[in-house]
Amino acid sequence: MLSVNRLDQADAQLLIQGAREKATKIGIPMCIAITDESGSLVAFERMDGGKVTSITIAQDKAFTASAARKATHEYNEACVPGSLVFGIHTALAGRLCIVGGGLPIYVDGEVVGGIGLSSGTPQQDMSCASAGIEYFLAETNSANDSV
Amino acid sequence: MLSVNRLDQADAQLLIQGAREKATKIGIPMCIAITDESGSLVAFERMDGGKVTSITIAQDKAFTASAARKATHEYNEACVPGSLVFGIHTALAGRLCIVGGGLPIYVDGEVVGGIGLSSGTPQQDMSCASAGIEYFLAETNSANDSV
Amino acid sequence: MLSVNRLDQADAQLLIQGAREKATKIGIPMCIAITDESGSLVAFERMDGGKVTSITIAQDKAFTASAARKATHEYNEACVPGSLVFGIHTALAGRLCIVGGGLPIYVDGEVVGGIGLSSGTPQQDMSCASAGIEYFLAETNSANDSV
Amino acid sequence: MLSVNRLDQADAQLLIQGAREKATKIGIPMCIAITDESGSLVAFERMDGGKVTSITIAQDKAFTASAARKATHEYNEACVPGSLVFGIHTALAGRLCIVGGGLPIYVDGEVVGGIGLSSGTPQQDMSCASAGIEYFLAETNSANDSV
Repeated sequence: MLSVNRLDQADAQLLIQGAREKATKIGIPMCIAITDESGSLVAFERMDGGKVTSITIAQDKAFTASAARKATHEYNEACVPGSLVFGIHTALAGRLCIVGGGLPIYVDGEVVGGIGLSSGTPQQDMSCASAGIEYFLAETNSANDSV
Repeated sequence: MLSVNRLDQADAQLLIQGAREKATKIGIPMCIAITDESGSLVAFERMDGGKVTSITIAQDKAFTASAARKATHEYNEACVPGSLVFGIHTALAGRLCIVGGGLPIYVDGEVVGGIGLSSGTPQQDMSCASAGIEYFLAETNSANDSV
Repeated sequence: MLSVNRLDQADAQLLIQGAREKATKIGIPMCIAITDESGSLVAFERMDGGKVTSITIAQDKAFTASAARKATHEYNEACVPGSLVFGIHTALAGRLCIVGGGLPIYVDGEVVGGIGLSSGTPQQDMSCASAGIEYFLAETNSANDSV
Repeated sequence: MLSVNRLDQADAQLLIQGAREKATKIGIPMCIAITDESGSLVAFERMDGGKVTSITIAQDKAFTASAARKATHEYNEACVPGSLVFGIHTALAGRLCIVGGGLPIYVDGEVVGGIGLSSGTPQQDMSCASAGIEYFLAETNSANDSV
């Protein structure tokens, strides 16, 4: 039997809050998706003004980052014509997303979930995804410190 | 030109809160999805313990209720062999969901979104969906009253 | 953070072995699928002579049983026209399978995976799925006893 | 009437065993899929720690290699913008996989099945796929020799 750790709903809300604050700061209403370590959706928020296409893309980014344990922009870098990775972007009926903005979430060295942002440029999406993780880690660490 | 009214993110959070409180009360961790009047996802929450299959089903219920402007259990009643409605449950590759638990959300006589619940029995799902709408309407009415 | 238990590969092979032995005994070559607690495939075996359509059906049964934490034949009983559950059989593009032969696997009161059988009648499929679980539980209990 | 030769389950287990041993040696838990000469799945194993996205990708690599009778990395080489092959990677809704790691299996000059590996780099996947075939051929040849 295997024992695995995964994000709970409280964790997911911290991740969304950190990403939302960054998105608000840069003025881009985002779609924000959080998945567990198996790639299954835990929480989703489309900020007022977030794009309709981004509803699915944000989810696919979070799915890819957690289920493949790799940032979507890392797949993007490797997936160029002539590379043996090329073609991965059409896998799973296109659900495997290589557009920047999906990050795996590590706790104690293992992937416990993923975060996916969409509606801005890939750089903006990546920046907000990172902000979500930073906020989550800071909040959960300070919670641990206070114990 | 048309002008449409639709749920915003704050509305969606009220709907989720009301549904979550009822789900907690009856002891069933639920998947809760909120869509806008076009059927596009606004917010989603999988309570800790909500079923993986319900991630999609809750979204499909909310989608159906808002985009078709009809409760999923009303489709269910009509969708029996021999009825001209029969077959609607396979439409949109099965995304049109007729299992009880999806309700359209009316404000001032028009549909502004939908709510879909899944993980319990259809009756439990319907009960929590109703609770979400009641809470939302109560909160937004009292907000208007206090102006 | 949540901590969950799931089948490992050694567990999956025990489940397959128990199901295969029963299938051999009744003379029906089966497709046998094992999923983890999130519905993700862990192992699959098509016995020589197993049906091609059953490759997907066995996987969908195991997926449904584990991800919805319910035996597929229980969905089948409830999913009749006029019931509020009717329509569940077309959910997830038909991947939610209500044909008998998919069982959730419980260890210490929680679902740790699922088993799906296909190629025989639903009764034969269910019988072999049960045999797989019985063999798995007997083997893992005797392993625990010998510690 | 045609008579075709295809892998049986015992062959598939030899292929998996050879691939698993190599994967263990290089320290990458893999998803391993074996298909018959028609591209239909015969056996699948997700080693403990194999990626969730790789469940489908490994199967699609094996499917492609056997059903198209071509290694996925050979499609990859040919599938570059400007080549008439370009676009093949989106065929069959992306199920035709051109990422390295899928190999057809030849016996007596004809394709009898395919093997697909996923979870490592394409080079690692290809290396383990080759190891599976080598082990299978060595075992079956020595079996023939001992007769």
